[in-house]
Amino acid sequence: MFAAAEADPQLSKEEAGPLEDRLRTALLKAQYARLKQEQRALLIVIAGIDGAGKGASVCLLNEWMDARHIRTLAFGEPSAAEQGHPWLWRYWRSLPAKGRTGIVFGSWYRPLLKEAARKKPRQKKILAFTQAIRDFENTLAQNGVQVIKLWYHLSQTAQRERTEKLLSDPDTAWQVRPEDIKAQKKFARLRDAGALAISLTHEAHAPWTIIPAADKQMRDISTGQAVLAALRKRRIEPLPHAAQASTPVHAPAPVPTLNDLDYAIKLGDDEYDKRLPEWQGRLARLARHPAFGKTPVILVFEGQDAAGKGGTIRRVTRALDARQFRAIPISAPSREELAHPYLWRFWRDLPEPGNLAIFDRSWYGRVLVERVEQYASEAEWRRAYDEINQFESQLLDSGAVILKFWLAVSKDEQLARFREREASPFKSFKITPDDWRNRKQWDAYVQAANDMFRHTSTQACPWHVLSANDKRHARIAVLECLVEALEAAQDRNSP
Amino acid sequence: MFAAAEADPQLSKEEAGPLEDRLRTALLKAQYARLKQEQRALLIVIAGIDGAGKGASVCLLNEWMDARHIRTLAFGEPSAAEQGHPWLWRYWRSLPAKGRTGIVFGSWYRPLLKEAARKKPRQKKILAFTQAIRDFENTLAQNGVQVIKLWYHLSQTAQRERTEKLLSDPDTAWQVRPEDIKAQKKFARLRDAGALAISLTHEAHAPWTIIPAADKQMRDISTGQAVLAALRKRRIEPLPHAAQASTPVHAPAPVPTLNDLDYAIKLGDDEYDKRLPEWQGRLARLARHPAFGKTPVILVFEGQDAAGKGGTIRRVTRALDARQFRAIPISAPSREELAHPYLWRFWRDLPEPGNLAIFDRSWYGRVLVERVEQYASEAEWRRAYDEINQFESQLLDSGAVILKFWLAVSKDEQLARFREREASPFKSFKITPDDWRNRKQWDAYVQAANDMFRHTSTQACPWHVLSANDKRHARIAVLECLVEALEAAQDRNSP
Repeated sequence: MFAAAEADPQLSKEEAGPLEDRLRTALLKAQYARLKQEQRALLIVIAGIDGAGKGASVCLLNEWMDARHIRTLAFGEPSAAEQGHPWLWRYWRSLPAKGRTGIVFGSWYRPLLKEAARKKPRQKKILAFTQAIRDFENTLAQNGVQVIKLWYHLSQTAQRERTEKLLSDPDTAWQVRPEDIKAQKKFARLRDAGALAISLTHEAHAPWTIIPAADKQMRDISTGQAVLAALRKRRIEPLPHAAQASTPVHAPAPVPTLNDLDYAIKLGDDEYDKRLPEWQGRLARLARHPAFGKTPVILVFEGQDAAGKGGTIRRVTRALDARQFRAIPISAPSREELAHPYLWRFWRDLPEPGNLAIFDRSWYGRVLVERVEQYASEAEWRRAYDEINQFESQLLDSGAVILKFWLAVSKDEQLARFREREASPFKSFKITPDDWRNRKQWDAYVQAANDMFRHTSTQACPWHVLSANDKRHARIAVLECLVEALEAAQDRNSP
Repeated sequence: MFAAAEADPQLSKEEAGPLEDRLRTALLKAQYARLKQEQRALLIVIAGIDGAGKGASVCLLNEWMDARHIRTLAFGEPSAAEQGHPWLWRYWRSLPAKGRTGIVFGSWYRPLLKEAARKKPRQKKILAFTQAIRDFENTLAQNGVQVIKLWYHLSQTAQRERTEKLLSDPDTAWQVRPEDIKAQKKFARLRDAGALAISLTHEAHAPWTIIPAADKQMRDISTGQAVLAALRKRRIEPLPHAAQASTPVHAPAPVPTLNDLDYAIKLGDDEYDKRLPEWQGRLARLARHPAFGKTPVILVFEGQDAAGKGGTIRRVTRALDARQFRAIPISAPSREELAHPYLWRFWRDLPEPGNLAIFDRSWYGRVLVERVEQYASEAEWRRAYDEINQFESQLLDSGAVILKFWLAVSKDEQLARFREREASPFKSFKITPDDWRNRKQWDAYVQAANDMFRHTSTQACPWHVLSANDKRHARIAVLECLVEALEAAQDRNSP
């Protein structure tokens, strides 16, 4: 794979000069064309063998292109805060908006390369990282973020000569990091790790380019050419949906459809007044227990309009300390959110360990309102089931508790509540023309919800579909479910 | 001050019922009117004696108003990340946008109240906190964020009775925190601390309201009424500029005007080629030294168009690790940024300790381009000098290093560079009609820059005004200045 690069090809200054001039003009033109059309974002992953001039190439791109629209995204060892999240979290959060370019240093290949360079690489880990990378890059490609990956390479001799030259001058010696010296001794292992990573993840929609890096001119021109080709590419070809073959992450969980739910279930006033403080008390004690500090908790509330999501959420939050939860109402995406992949905004709202994020509506909007109102294309909402399952699966793997509630009301009950709200001076704000319009699409929403349960209710992360015709029943059921989930998490976390 | 509240006034359910209905309707109406007009943001500070139902009042406001447009901003002890920043940083970052409401729990009164409740309060600390709070609230008032402050209060007897009642039932006992028990014993001290804080910071533009909290109905109605009055207020009256009396934070530093700068200063090619790697090497070693991890560094680059800011920044960043700096180009504010106080966006971009933020243009835009092009009113840019001095002063107090560079070119040299850029196929993107238009305003910009130096060059944070007619001279001067500042910081931080 690296034979051509390890031949250390050269380009004289005389040859490179005119090439460089043309390249810089073309790069700027291509960059502006993208910005103007707010086309796809571009992520340039910088990887490669140590001492091949990766840092200098980042500077080069900032010099050759208009640096105001480029952002260098450099990641070191995960910080304490990052360790409490899925490992892809930090990359999701910093995705550039459409039209913009991000240069990624310390990318999502880091853990895979590290594992592959071990004396005895663990196959299981390698497969898991590879699968996660593929899913991630495929989701990006589908959602308007183009990815190209540059591998900087040179021969072992050239690597050693370069290091020695730098070390010989005290003013350049700092450019050689202690890791670089170590890397020299492991040249063969690091090269093989790179070859493995590249062969496992080279895809038409996220291709690798190997950059010969022994000679500065050759490295610069090759870098510029690779980026230019990417900027000029009209479309990226993500895998066809069927071929994505994201193995089902968790087995499906049986879930009732909205049609066969028991809407008659009720809780008496006395019973409710007795049970509410009991469950709130249990929740309060759990949330204040030191073991809770290790767990991020994510609550999702979906349901028909007027099903009582707000009131239920308040019954939960009353048992919590205001500093440990955030209630996040989800409405139509902002312009900035539309310029990013669909799930980006939700990645940014994830809770730290010891905190709860309570979503009043959620990422499921994609397969509910966006499907029914045709804000999303059929291809978009169909593939969202997989994207959502991957998202939740990564959250679960990182130790999060996720609970998804659907509060269901019957069509008659909703009508009664709409009328009651309209009649109340301080509830009428909750009824808008949108609500009446949605109601006309009742059957389409029921269909969308039932499809959603079928595709996204897994054993690890099932939907809790609750009748909310009686609000008291629904509130107690939610509290009960939350308390049990937190108790289970506490048992898992206790030594 | 608290006599009325400590009489523990009551309101029967019968009296409260009709009041509540009217209040809720009026609150919603006032909330929507604000949202629609994107008027001022509203911050409601929740403070008061322990066990007075502060948490319940946050829930109440979320229930009585439209919770989708309210955000609860709850702060505990500062986290490790927060401790590396000025103490007001976390409040600045989470300011709500115009039209929106934030409820602040664990507000900027926390350190002042804590200090005032000590057995022997330190007057110096109390004055420093008070001054910082006043400056902060005044800046908010001037910049479209209204602040009201609610102090929840009840008698010592009522406090004790409430706690005993809660403790007597296992389902409500969790509502009593260990701090609450402690607070009971310190009732007098906490009350006096509250009285002191209130009397020092009660201003027409950020008033305190004392809420009698022994009786639930009385507390709820009083809370709603205070918030309603704030929402309905047409304008807030910030102090007239002259009366703000923000004592000059640091003595002014003498600084040359652009007119009497020596533009002939030059550095020979050989000299430059020798010194550049020397200074970059020193910078590289400093930035990799463990002591650097304690210091956040902020570099500000301003100057005429084509003065060579970009090239100078690249000479600095080449000596740095990509993970430890962020280059931040400042252009026209986005819609979200316009909905917040002017300095908000810069508070969000501050570096962690051990990192550098390099601003290519900065908060000084307010007194440069916004002044000259009349994007800001005269009142706005005139008061910005004080706001900026306060901002930088807080950064310095938190241990940051700030260096402000003005790269100056003569009018002839700028013309030569404009022409050269236009002639180059890959530099012409740097010349826009804006640049030619700005050039016509040359004298106005010089005047604005000179005024800015006079008002914002302090002993602690002086402007470095450098001739950049010779780019090599300016680059070396910047590197030298940065290295010296980091060395001084390292000496300070070494034990």
